[in-house]
Amino acid sequence: MGKNNTDKKLRIIPLGGLGEVGKNMMAYEYGDNILLVDTGLMFPENDMLGIDYIIPDIAYLQDKAHLVRGIVITHGHEDHTGAITHVLEHINAPIYATPLTRGLLEVKLSRGGMINKAQLHTVEAGEMVDIGPFQVEFFHVCHSIPDGVGLGITTPAGLVVHSGDYKFDHTPVDNWPTDYAKLAEFSERGVLALLADSTNSYRAGWTPSERVIDSALDDVFRAAPGRIILASFASLISRMQQVGNAAFNYRRKMAFVGTSMVENAKIARKMGYLDLPDELIIPIEQALKLPPNEVVLMCTGTQGEPTSIMGRLSTGTNRQFDIQSGDTVVLSSHPIPGNEESVYRTINRLFRRGANVIYEAIAPVHVSGHASQEEMKLLMHLVKPKHFIPIHGELHQLHQHAKIAQQVGIPQENIAVIENGQVVEFQDGKMRLAERVPGGYVFVDGAGVGDIGPSVVREREALARDGFVLVNLTVDQNTCDLREEPEIITRGFIYARNGDDLLESTRSLVKNVIDCSKNGELQGDLEQAIKSFLFNKTRRRPMVFVTMSRS
Amino acid sequence: MGKNNTDKKLRIIPLGGLGEVGKNMMAYEYGDNILLVDTGLMFPENDMLGIDYIIPDIAYLQDKAHLVRGIVITHGHEDHTGAITHVLEHINAPIYATPLTRGLLEVKLSRGGMINKAQLHTVEAGEMVDIGPFQVEFFHVCHSIPDGVGLGITTPAGLVVHSGDYKFDHTPVDNWPTDYAKLAEFSERGVLALLADSTNSYRAGWTPSERVIDSALDDVFRAAPGRIILASFASLISRMQQVGNAAFNYRRKMAFVGTSMVENAKIARKMGYLDLPDELIIPIEQALKLPPNEVVLMCTGTQGEPTSIMGRLSTGTNRQFDIQSGDTVVLSSHPIPGNEESVYRTINRLFRRGANVIYEAIAPVHVSGHASQEEMKLLMHLVKPKHFIPIHGELHQLHQHAKIAQQVGIPQENIAVIENGQVVEFQDGKMRLAERVPGGYVFVDGAGVGDIGPSVVREREALARDGFVLVNLTVDQNTCDLREEPEIITRGFIYARNGDDLLESTRSLVKNVIDCSKNGELQGDLEQAIKSFLFNKTRRRPMVFVTMSRS
Repeated sequence: MGKNNTDKKLRIIPLGGLGEVGKNMMAYEYGDNILLVDTGLMFPENDMLGIDYIIPDIAYLQDKAHLVRGIVITHGHEDHTGAITHVLEHINAPIYATPLTRGLLEVKLSRGGMINKAQLHTVEAGEMVDIGPFQVEFFHVCHSIPDGVGLGITTPAGLVVHSGDYKFDHTPVDNWPTDYAKLAEFSERGVLALLADSTNSYRAGWTPSERVIDSALDDVFRAAPGRIILASFASLISRMQQVGNAAFNYRRKMAFVGTSMVENAKIARKMGYLDLPDELIIPIEQALKLPPNEVVLMCTGTQGEPTSIMGRLSTGTNRQFDIQSGDTVVLSSHPIPGNEESVYRTINRLFRRGANVIYEAIAPVHVSGHASQEEMKLLMHLVKPKHFIPIHGELHQLHQHAKIAQQVGIPQENIAVIENGQVVEFQDGKMRLAERVPGGYVFVDGAGVGDIGPSVVREREALARDGFVLVNLTVDQNTCDLREEPEIITRGFIYARNGDDLLESTRSLVKNVIDCSKNGELQGDLEQAIKSFLFNKTRRRPMVFVTMSRS
Repeated sequence: MGKNNTDKKLRIIPLGGLGEVGKNMMAYEYGDNILLVDTGLMFPENDMLGIDYIIPDIAYLQDKAHLVRGIVITHGHEDHTGAITHVLEHINAPIYATPLTRGLLEVKLSRGGMINKAQLHTVEAGEMVDIGPFQVEFFHVCHSIPDGVGLGITTPAGLVVHSGDYKFDHTPVDNWPTDYAKLAEFSERGVLALLADSTNSYRAGWTPSERVIDSALDDVFRAAPGRIILASFASLISRMQQVGNAAFNYRRKMAFVGTSMVENAKIARKMGYLDLPDELIIPIEQALKLPPNEVVLMCTGTQGEPTSIMGRLSTGTNRQFDIQSGDTVVLSSHPIPGNEESVYRTINRLFRRGANVIYEAIAPVHVSGHASQEEMKLLMHLVKPKHFIPIHGELHQLHQHAKIAQQVGIPQENIAVIENGQVVEFQDGKMRLAERVPGGYVFVDGAGVGDIGPSVVREREALARDGFVLVNLTVDQNTCDLREEPEIITRGFIYARNGDDLLESTRSLVKNVIDCSKNGELQGDLEQAIKSFLFNKTRRRPMVFVTMSRS
């Protein structure tokens, strides 16, 4: 590690996404070498109107694409994989992932027509890979999807441990606990910095093992008089295993419903991450013909998404089958913050259709995939980092994680609570905050990536609040007399049938205001007059437009 | 109670509001007599675009207004009082309320210019009032506002107990526990039906006493290096008392900030519900001149409302003062479901401005005002009702409350889980479900009450999703040749500067499609062609309008 290297700094940059720091993408930079970790997407908040999803802003990497030596994906969830095709369009570096994660990435890349472009490399937990100057050791972590890994990244500046999404489940469904020994071994080598998942930094104690779901499912299967319809995420492979086990024990057949559920189950079974006997699994068409108490259907739609199977079932608009009285519906999930309203609306609708609905609030049919406070402390004691950077959380969760780190003895000056785009530099074993780089996010709406900015969202907000009113005029080019009755188009402002009087008086207003003398300003004057008039009448502020043809 | 009366039925009707059954208004009907309980409003869900608030649909009462013998308001929270002026416009019946509730109603009625129209009657907890054939006994309940009551309603059909919002706090801040003796006495007389608050039907155990907040506040006041800014609801009078006590103990002066906070504190002090020495309370102007560690400011804005004081502080847009480093901000509240996103966004922003933020998730600075499961069971055992109707909750919470009732021995057939507008009849001691009546809600938007229906909200949704495109044409009335370049107006669809090419090609498209031969359909054809074109280019579906002047 000659002089050249000691001059250089290790730079760590959480690179964009919504509010959660470093969740969707992180960059590790040493000299002219960049290692990217994860390429995830986020779903829009309620007031990001019309936006389909959000990807990290990779402006910082725009002219550094050739310096990226590799992309490591820690596990197969959307918020760590979902932007892979967008990233590959700009940065074609080798991708490293464990077998299941690679399998799920391949599905995504095939759909995006990029499977041939991607250079995929399979790594197994426990292996070490040289990626430029970074020696990356993949260590197994438990999470709510199998085959997740954290990373030990040895750089010339020191060893950095990146936890990924993790929990310390002593009795995971796949019997593969987090790799405690590797974490302890890191601490023996000396850890410059730990970057760890802050999702549950508020949650006291220890996250329950996924195994507790077994007995909750047992209760459900024992009591259900008819069909069981269980909703979960399509990536929750271990939940598929648990439901399959219960189905087997209670002599029910199991059917996966919906493309993503069917595809992921197929991959996971093929790759050996899902161990279900062939005779247990039947197609949905066949399941619908069996007596209700002999089947369990597994589908998506735990977040109240109206177009998901569970969403359609709740509104009676599913094509293939409907909720029937006697159905037991299980939502094996936690509402993603912001989705509470739509989730509970869906639950109410399912009750209304005669289902008995069982969900997290009334039985432990779901547990978190993230570490709670005592696990966070254990991680710190195992790894014994000199510096600590909380990641994977919003600012308030990072602050809370930082408090926990101080409790276990990491000095405040060795903790960096940072936001996306804030560069942290390490040199000679010391940490300092460096410059801020672009670390925001980019809206994806339809085919458009980044063409919708805040100004368009603000227009949508205004339209969503009070709609618009358009007045189209045909006037004589000389006298400015109206040649036709003013045409008025309005949407989102007022219910047309009740609004006839109002629109009629708007027409009268227009006729009164038209005054050819101040020709140039006429349109603006009219718009202003209409706005004031409508606000006085309704206390609403629709967007108002006047178009004018002269003939 | 001769023959006449035994023929008659007692009818109980939860009368509208959003998802929560009977929260905002209930009707008790006996023969030609109606008793209304509460007149509340609800705030819109995230997808009810542009709506200011929501009030119960009183269509059922429209031609029965003269039968309403009285309106009882159980306590002074918005979701039980907020629609009073709307209701009084149609139904001018005497209003009964306890002193503090009456005081808060008077503020509302004065603002609405209706104080002279309202017939207000003060009742004290423990009193009985005859309202038509209903003998209404007001019994004290603990809740997160003082002077709340539940109701024992003796009717010719039997005694009904209406819990109102309640908890069994053994050590309430005002030292006035719920009236256990009255509840037990009801059961001695025999209770036909209990209607009880279901808000916390998921919550195991017993809701902590409001008193636990004292020690959490103590910790905050002991540690805060600078100003303390505490946000709460303006109606949380007991929280004002607790903050005042802590301020007194730690020798800080206290200032209320914001009209509703100042007004409510004034009324509560005047009426003796808030016991704070004069020298403790100072105006905000004076507070801002004191050393930071000698003041506590109390304001509103716990729900992340952008226009509230806390919302403005978080974005640096408050007129009178700003967040400064060293401030301790306390959010003494629970996010109302649906507000989680904006609450946490506000917290992140406050951290970013250098405040230390303390909130429910990290310290017990708030407790619920509603009973948990063991309290619900206690209420049932005290009252020993023959029938049970869970109210004050969404359908899923009512189902859960019904399960609890079965656990304590109320048979399933004596429990009615109903929605707003479902009439329940009692005759000869028996309960049956009768017809459904209008029990929905009415949107209030600006000056309009009920003129915005689902169709307008759907238009707003479409506009919010993809905006609109308007093409205005001036064509020759004979040849259909364009006389001017097509004018295009678009909002919420595409960022204008990036969209120039797209709009240019839309203009070309329009020129190609114009074909005078099929005159009548031209506008429709153009709109269709533009829609398809834009969807192909962008995968978005803006509303498209074509206006056309012929000259």
